[in-house]
Amino acid sequence: MNSTQNDGLDGGAGSIRDQVIAFKREQIINAAVDLFYDNGYQRTTLDAVAERLGVTKPFIYYHFKDKEEILAEISRRSIAHANDALEEALATTGRPSERLYSVVRTITRSTLKWRRYTAIFFREQKNLSEQARQPLYSMHRKFDGMLTKLLEEGVRTGEFRVTDPALTSLALAGMIGWAYNWYRPEGRLSVEDICDRMAEMALNLVGAKPERSD
Amino acid sequence: MNSTQNDGLDGGAGSIRDQVIAFKREQIINAAVDLFYDNGYQRTTLDAVAERLGVTKPFIYYHFKDKEEILAEISRRSIAHANDALEEALATTGRPSERLYSVVRTITRSTLKWRRYTAIFFREQKNLSEQARQPLYSMHRKFDGMLTKLLEEGVRTGEFRVTDPALTSLALAGMIGWAYNWYRPEGRLSVEDICDRMAEMALNLVGAKPERSD
Repeated sequence: MNSTQNDGLDGGAGSIRDQVIAFKREQIINAAVDLFYDNGYQRTTLDAVAERLGVTKPFIYYHFKDKEEILAEISRRSIAHANDALEEALATTGRPSERLYSVVRTITRSTLKWRRYTAIFFREQKNLSEQARQPLYSMHRKFDGMLTKLLEEGVRTGEFRVTDPALTSLALAGMIGWAYNWYRPEGRLSVEDICDRMAEMALNLVGAKPERSD
Repeated sequence: MNSTQNDGLDGGAGSIRDQVIAFKREQIINAAVDLFYDNGYQRTTLDAVAERLGVTKPFIYYHFKDKEEILAEISRRSIAHANDALEEALATTGRPSERLYSVVRTITRSTLKWRRYTAIFFREQKNLSEQARQPLYSMHRKFDGMLTKLLEEGVRTGEFRVTDPALTSLALAGMIGWAYNWYRPEGRLSVEDICDRMAEMALNLVGAKPERSD
């Protein structure tokens, strides 16, 4: 509660203003994703982002300090979506193999949906300062750590045959994450088909029994 | 046999000259890989490459038309090494599961060795012209096609349980290829350990029997 921000009707008004600000930030991010993805980060000016949105450059500077901050936010989202998906799936109950099946489907769906964000992060990470990059690498390590724990759980219950859970979690991350590079929306498989098959392959990879009890 | 290139002793002399030219090209490529990998393609000038080698820029222009041609050559090698490794392993005889085991070990070793070339290609491909990029994409498709054929063979002999060989070959490529991103020479596993475990995981992934008859 801050009196400069909260006089009278501001609870509602503030929340509408926040939504407008969030909406404008989304528009900027969307335009930047289109341009960074198609033309590369360094060849994209903030003028080009402003032009695509039909706004002036000060409009962008009101929401982001500079172009690097936009890249950092795109990069953060590319990982945050995967981590959220993993955390959510891990919170469910059930046997490790059931949870892995559900985890892989969820992460695959998220990978396909946010593939352009991921492509931008992997291509352009050298354009981020060390300070901006470190938290992103931490988020990646968090992802690998959470997946490793699930594999270890499956080893403990005897469901998974995994020699090296940490290496296997990197193998799974590569198997799924690589789709950001090859997936085409107009391709022969639907998103749900790809999710199902990735989940089956993941169960094979960890040596789980292919039959699930539904 | 061309008379301007082949008078008298030129068979030998030409071959030494060719070796010197090849050696000089290697030096340029190595220096460019170091700089592109650490600082990014766009931030690396040919002046910086020349400086690292202690040569003048005309020395570089004698061997490469421009910076893009160096990037194209680095990119080509990143894929050519994997394709050569795959072709070589596929040429061996044996049951599909034995050949897959050997293929995965060979490709993994190649991936770890040439990881910086691969990183540069995936980061910097937007800096190549469409004309330079297309042959590289064809080489990637060739890799996927060769691996798919091996999986189909294993399905035919009844050794592999694979629903969708083309998708599974992309899954395997991701599982192995992703190592270019996480592998650290100072890490806890040796190259040979990683190769062995990748090969075991690949056999699991395609539903082959884990026991191999040696």
